[in-house]
Amino acid sequence: MAAILFEVNGTTVEIAANDGENLLDVARKANVAIDAPCSGNGVCGKCRVRLLEGTLDSPENRHLTREEYEAGWRLACCAKVVGDARIEVPDIASAYRSRMKMADLSSPEEVAIFLNAEKQLADAGMLPGSDLRFLTVRLSEPTVDDAMPDNERLMRAIRAQTGCERVELSFRALQRLAETLRGSGFCIKCVVSARPEILRVLDVLPEDSATPLAGIALDLGTTSLAALRVNLETGAILAKGSGGNGQIRFGADVINRMIESSRPGGRKRLQDAVIVESIRPLIEELCATAGVPQENVYRMVLAGNTTMNHLLLGLFADPIRMEPFVPSFFQTKGLLARDIGLPLHPEAELVLAPNIGSYVGGDITAGTLSSMIWNRPELSLFIDLGTNGELVLGNNEFLMSCACSADPAFEGGDISCGMRATDGAIEACTIDPVTLEPTLTVVGGCAPAGICGSGIIDIIAELFRAGAINGKGKLVREGDRILHDEHGMGSYVLAWQSETGGVKDVAINEVDIDNFIRAKGAIYSATATMLAALDMDASMIERVYVAGGIGSGINMKNAVTIGMFPDIPIGQFSYIGNSSLTGAYAMLLSSLAQEKVEELGSSMTYLELSNVPGYMDAFVAACFLPHTDASLFPSVCV
Amino acid sequence: MAAILFEVNGTTVEIAANDGENLLDVARKANVAIDAPCSGNGVCGKCRVRLLEGTLDSPENRHLTREEYEAGWRLACCAKVVGDARIEVPDIASAYRSRMKMADLSSPEEVAIFLNAEKQLADAGMLPGSDLRFLTVRLSEPTVDDAMPDNERLMRAIRAQTGCERVELSFRALQRLAETLRGSGFCIKCVVSARPEILRVLDVLPEDSATPLAGIALDLGTTSLAALRVNLETGAILAKGSGGNGQIRFGADVINRMIESSRPGGRKRLQDAVIVESIRPLIEELCATAGVPQENVYRMVLAGNTTMNHLLLGLFADPIRMEPFVPSFFQTKGLLARDIGLPLHPEAELVLAPNIGSYVGGDITAGTLSSMIWNRPELSLFIDLGTNGELVLGNNEFLMSCACSADPAFEGGDISCGMRATDGAIEACTIDPVTLEPTLTVVGGCAPAGICGSGIIDIIAELFRAGAINGKGKLVREGDRILHDEHGMGSYVLAWQSETGGVKDVAINEVDIDNFIRAKGAIYSATATMLAALDMDASMIERVYVAGGIGSGINMKNAVTIGMFPDIPIGQFSYIGNSSLTGAYAMLLSSLAQEKVEELGSSMTYLELSNVPGYMDAFVAACFLPHTDASLFPSVCV
Repeated sequence: MAAILFEVNGTTVEIAANDGENLLDVARKANVAIDAPCSGNGVCGKCRVRLLEGTLDSPENRHLTREEYEAGWRLACCAKVVGDARIEVPDIASAYRSRMKMADLSSPEEVAIFLNAEKQLADAGMLPGSDLRFLTVRLSEPTVDDAMPDNERLMRAIRAQTGCERVELSFRALQRLAETLRGSGFCIKCVVSARPEILRVLDVLPEDSATPLAGIALDLGTTSLAALRVNLETGAILAKGSGGNGQIRFGADVINRMIESSRPGGRKRLQDAVIVESIRPLIEELCATAGVPQENVYRMVLAGNTTMNHLLLGLFADPIRMEPFVPSFFQTKGLLARDIGLPLHPEAELVLAPNIGSYVGGDITAGTLSSMIWNRPELSLFIDLGTNGELVLGNNEFLMSCACSADPAFEGGDISCGMRATDGAIEACTIDPVTLEPTLTVVGGCAPAGICGSGIIDIIAELFRAGAINGKGKLVREGDRILHDEHGMGSYVLAWQSETGGVKDVAINEVDIDNFIRAKGAIYSATATMLAALDMDASMIERVYVAGGIGSGINMKNAVTIGMFPDIPIGQFSYIGNSSLTGAYAMLLSSLAQEKVEELGSSMTYLELSNVPGYMDAFVAACFLPHTDASLFPSVCV
Repeated sequence: MAAILFEVNGTTVEIAANDGENLLDVARKANVAIDAPCSGNGVCGKCRVRLLEGTLDSPENRHLTREEYEAGWRLACCAKVVGDARIEVPDIASAYRSRMKMADLSSPEEVAIFLNAEKQLADAGMLPGSDLRFLTVRLSEPTVDDAMPDNERLMRAIRAQTGCERVELSFRALQRLAETLRGSGFCIKCVVSARPEILRVLDVLPEDSATPLAGIALDLGTTSLAALRVNLETGAILAKGSGGNGQIRFGADVINRMIESSRPGGRKRLQDAVIVESIRPLIEELCATAGVPQENVYRMVLAGNTTMNHLLLGLFADPIRMEPFVPSFFQTKGLLARDIGLPLHPEAELVLAPNIGSYVGGDITAGTLSSMIWNRPELSLFIDLGTNGELVLGNNEFLMSCACSADPAFEGGDISCGMRATDGAIEACTIDPVTLEPTLTVVGGCAPAGICGSGIIDIIAELFRAGAINGKGKLVREGDRILHDEHGMGSYVLAWQSETGGVKDVAINEVDIDNFIRAKGAIYSATATMLAALDMDASMIERVYVAGGIGSGINMKNAVTIGMFPDIPIGQFSYIGNSSLTGAYAMLLSSLAQEKVEELGSSMTYLELSNVPGYMDAFVAACFLPHTDASLFPSVCV
């Protein structure tokens, strides 16, 4: 046995490990979060740690420069324990937190986008209108001649006051009833869920209670979480927050998470990672900010993808990833937050936006609601670009959806200098067509440290426009910034090491470009396949709504230039922010919105692309800049 | 601060106490159970402890003889801490356990009585017929063309198989569904609650699962608990058990419990005493005996009085004991066992037999069911003699009920040598009318140590018949066994100290007789008051059913002789055992029985005796042997 000491952000975690054990596995056992997007397959090169003392069996690796290796940097997934070691682990929590900065209402742009969506929902009659409300009830005081039990007395008063015949009391309400009535002169404030057929009393409070009726809307992403704490009476946002999904150390994508969950104890590990490590701290933060106890949260609406929903509930998720791709549920009702250990009000319902397929989940049904495409006659395309890419095509008469394995390229995965849209990320770029000198926009105004999704789109589009890369993504011009390694692989340098303050240049190479072309090709071919299934073509699309972690910085013209989105006038594209969170917010505030999302979930067609003949051909055809069929991109291929 | 060391049954508990603190309070804080029927008012003399070392401020007391005092015996409620002390506490757990020996199906008589009740319920169409059952379902395996989620697949199969349109899955069933289906070839055993309108799947098991579908019926008494673990498919009793109610250290009667519960932290203390200390160990014992896990218990039906039900649920019970005597509830639905921390199946429902008044609770509604008086034309009186006395009068057309504060006299409380019907208790007695020599029947065949309820009835009846006591209960004959103390108070010695092996004689004195006459007077006057309210008289009663802890040893003729029961032919009296437990058993096994109890609860009239003009007069008139109006007892007063 060896003693492994992990140092993370000022704290130290020690664990005993066997010789030969994989360091990433040891870290997972010790509950130490290491960013491992490819879940330990040695592919992504992101699970870097630094050996401070002791030894590791960890050979040099293409993901590390000689200087990095000599400075002690290792890939955790490629290192084996051979004795005691002290290991520094970069703090990824802060990376998690800022990851959603473009889509969690922390910027004025996001807030404006959110308010616009809210207005459209309100115009459609959706907001507000929750079944949850306060109901102040004055009861006659009991006498010897009218000595019915307190619960019947309350039900009688509510029946008389509301006309609702069927009244139910929760156990919590019963437990508090006698004391609250007598402490409050028989006039109390009930927290009720008032549905047409049945009125349920969730709790009883003193008449003068001033705590708000609160709810939480949560976007549970594969990578990140974003949440709003809302006053259910007014719709006012009491607090907002975001954080990382602690499951990330078990893989960046849903497939690796499911594989991990199928290992012994895996379901519990994955569930704890998201509930104990991620959601609970976020709830605590939201409630602390709002200055009201967690017990005053009476409902939580959560929008997550199908896999996230299953892992959240501790379900066996393996069947989702294996043909015929069958999840445990699309819709499930009657969940309580306490069922999964969330310390809200004991009667707080946990509402999950419904899934509609193994890879199109509640984040998309909730997002579809807030896109409003279901409410308009024009043919619209709604694209959510997060860790995965999901698309919905349709209008107020029909909706069709599909998911494509875009990999995490839009979040900087699979890209050598890729990173999430956090401080130091190149998020936008122009390149002089003559000199090929770049002009960079960097998140936080820092020195450039890497490239995030919107930046990659810009770089590829600009290089293509300048004729520096050809349709296959190969560098075909010479220049100071264009380098070739000993194998002949070309790369384009955006920032020299001296400008970055890091250990190497920030560059994009031909493998990166190829990876990204495959990702954009997946998005385009998914669009094309849906259109073909409907006997339509891209020119018939009237509106495109882009949502998700790619952020409001996305340059739509450039995305068309590289052939990611269909070639329609740029004025018809909109970025609509974190549509999942907006949808969850609407479901929290409006029973009508909740019903509408359920209806969308039931009525939307789900296309499993891998089952569609011709999809692979469409994908291959789209893996070209902008497309092998130039006629599809008239504005680009003049 | 002083260190107090309690020694109980071989274990030692140490706690720091302040000088001047009451020793009974200190014991409660230390969670040491001391039998304190009067809850520390210095009245009953039952809270005896022995000072082994150290000091206590505890003067001599009428409840202790000089010898006892010198041997270190003290009343805990009359002792104050003045320094360190080591205290021996008699083990009352064993007393608790054997207390219900006459009414928990441990004797052949009880089993015969139970089987008779079971047969009558079956004859009335009640048994069996629970909505809980196993349902084996074979599902078609999913394919690419039929890839609906597992939950919908199961619901579809159940709909097709049962014709029930509304099918619901519990969260537990959802959690286990995917794995169970795939581990069991898509043929599974569902645990369902099949009601006319809705079928709910509580859990899913492999097809070959052999664990029984189990339920628990529990009689939650003020003093004792008795429970049956039942196979819900067959009605077979898998295990039976009994135990004490740990709340007893807070008082023998419901009033003292309610007072204690209204003190700071009292609700939690009382709830823990019954759940953590009493019900959970009993459930563990039942499940260990039956050899199946607690998780296989899918329903628990509990019959308890109104106060017990409130304290069980942790409710504020104070309003029950204060005019206008308003409880929090009579009936409450939708409780789960886990709501109060009972570790059964997570979906296990906790069904409480309904209360009908502040002092007539679920033990009586359940007991009324098993008495069968609701199913017969003849006017019947059902009397439950436990820690309290409750009565129901009626037939298949009407039912009226009331409770009387009989005090715990029927369980040996308020009687100097009184004890529960455990080993050493004189349970029956005849007295030679000439010599006044007694012939005793002692529980367990031991040396006599005290007198239980049925024994007291016999002694008073025999002394009255022999002319040794008059109608007021005063000793009016001389004899070897009749003694008078220095104040002139007479007593009758049943066993001399030399025969008991104890420190004093077992005797009954005039205060005891007076206390008991008040208790029997309460029962009789309750009967008379109900009859008067209905414009009936005692001669119209055709059947009397006696139930409860008084036990099958009760001599009905003697009970009539002392004027406790109406003077009708002895052949019309029956002892029907623990009717609450039998009723809970029926409710567990039969939805029809459960509905019937609810209907009985709703339709039964409740008479609050303290509100009836004339009740006090009736009570005073009944405090005489057999009654001040001799014409009511023609067979006694010849």
